[in-house]
Amino acid sequence: MQEEHISSVFDRDLEAVQAQIMKMGGLVEEAIRLAAKSLETRDGELARDVRERDRSIDELEHQINQRAARILALRAPTAVDLRLILTVIKISGNLERIGDYAKNMAKRTGVLSQLAPVGDSGASIRRMTRLVEAMLKDALDAYVQRDAALAADVIARDEDVDQIYNALFRELLTFMMEDPRNITACMHLHFIAKNTERMGDHVTSIAEQVTYLVTGNHPDEPRPKADTTSSATEV
Amino acid sequence: MQEEHISSVFDRDLEAVQAQIMKMGGLVEEAIRLAAKSLETRDGELARDVRERDRSIDELEHQINQRAARILALRAPTAVDLRLILTVIKISGNLERIGDYAKNMAKRTGVLSQLAPVGDSGASIRRMTRLVEAMLKDALDAYVQRDAALAADVIARDEDVDQIYNALFRELLTFMMEDPRNITACMHLHFIAKNTERMGDHVTSIAEQVTYLVTGNHPDEPRPKADTTSSATEV
Repeated sequence: MQEEHISSVFDRDLEAVQAQIMKMGGLVEEAIRLAAKSLETRDGELARDVRERDRSIDELEHQINQRAARILALRAPTAVDLRLILTVIKISGNLERIGDYAKNMAKRTGVLSQLAPVGDSGASIRRMTRLVEAMLKDALDAYVQRDAALAADVIARDEDVDQIYNALFRELLTFMMEDPRNITACMHLHFIAKNTERMGDHVTSIAEQVTYLVTGNHPDEPRPKADTTSSATEV
Repeated sequence: MQEEHISSVFDRDLEAVQAQIMKMGGLVEEAIRLAAKSLETRDGELARDVRERDRSIDELEHQINQRAARILALRAPTAVDLRLILTVIKISGNLERIGDYAKNMAKRTGVLSQLAPVGDSGASIRRMTRLVEAMLKDALDAYVQRDAALAADVIARDEDVDQIYNALFRELLTFMMEDPRNITACMHLHFIAKNTERMGDHVTSIAEQVTYLVTGNHPDEPRPKADTTSSATEV
């Protein structure tokens, strides 16, 4: 009886910390969406809002880490319960970084509003952020549903993000060479594109944690790194 | 007697996992140094070597995480021992990211060797990487010696890295506007500079983990973010 009691308290602890992860995930999804929107609509008010909200995300990470440490100390979980706590720690770290990138994206709204738009690079960035947002949604669904197949799908989709980034990198080089007045805007757009590509990497890490949680193994092969801009000497 | 025996095995476990962190830290310090050197001396062979070595760093992170999970499962540590394991997990993650940035820096060696040098931006990048390397060395020393004061010092020094980055960002804009033939090289240099600045952020995270390990609290205040390039409309 006593044991059952302890075990149900333990289950509640695990549920509570997972609920916090989902809440944090929801806030981060929203942050990506609003940061992209603030850029697109040149909405400085919204950009400030995204920056404000990042504090709640950071605060949640802190709470999740504290709760995870408490569960480890008091409950000494093993096997799948231990894996759950370990993934909670890693995933909250990834979510915090993604939130940070969204905040940094929003920060560029002010400066880009003052500069002439550059081609349709806004559209490519929008496409990238939507892809990453959808990947994050699926990675979190995979986490809740312990769905290793969906997690594998998310990991595979990161290549699409990398490809859009590579194309955009070359596009931005072209715009800068065509007209030096585009240089400042392009540097900021490159910054945003690279940040978005990094968000994709962190979403991929979350999906990898789901694989670990479900199977007990990390995905075997290092995933292909598809940022090929390191060799771009010309456009 | 039995208890003493278990406890000394436990201590050996903790020592072993910390030794792995130090080994990983040494490899990452070396990776930063060699990546910067490969860029400076345009040494493609050395750059390839840095990329090869990154596998050992990734492999070590994997081993450290496995060992940490095993200690949590078998020993159920509490208080400072639990904090130690939690910091081991976080720090190995930070070191893996820094290693990744070093690898990405080395990857640019090939393309930059084919392009004309741009001003003395190489010197600024060299200064940044040396700062980050020294910060990492001190963060790891602070970790081994449980030295919260040295950790605080490392955290403070990240502002210097940010300042060099900001100055370099503006310098690169100038070079690109002066001569469009500089654009491709400057985009790669900006990429490297931003990577180095991010390494500084991860070293800061390591130092923050030392504070947590020693004091049981995370550093109170969010540290000032000194990347001011988000508002750079002109140089």
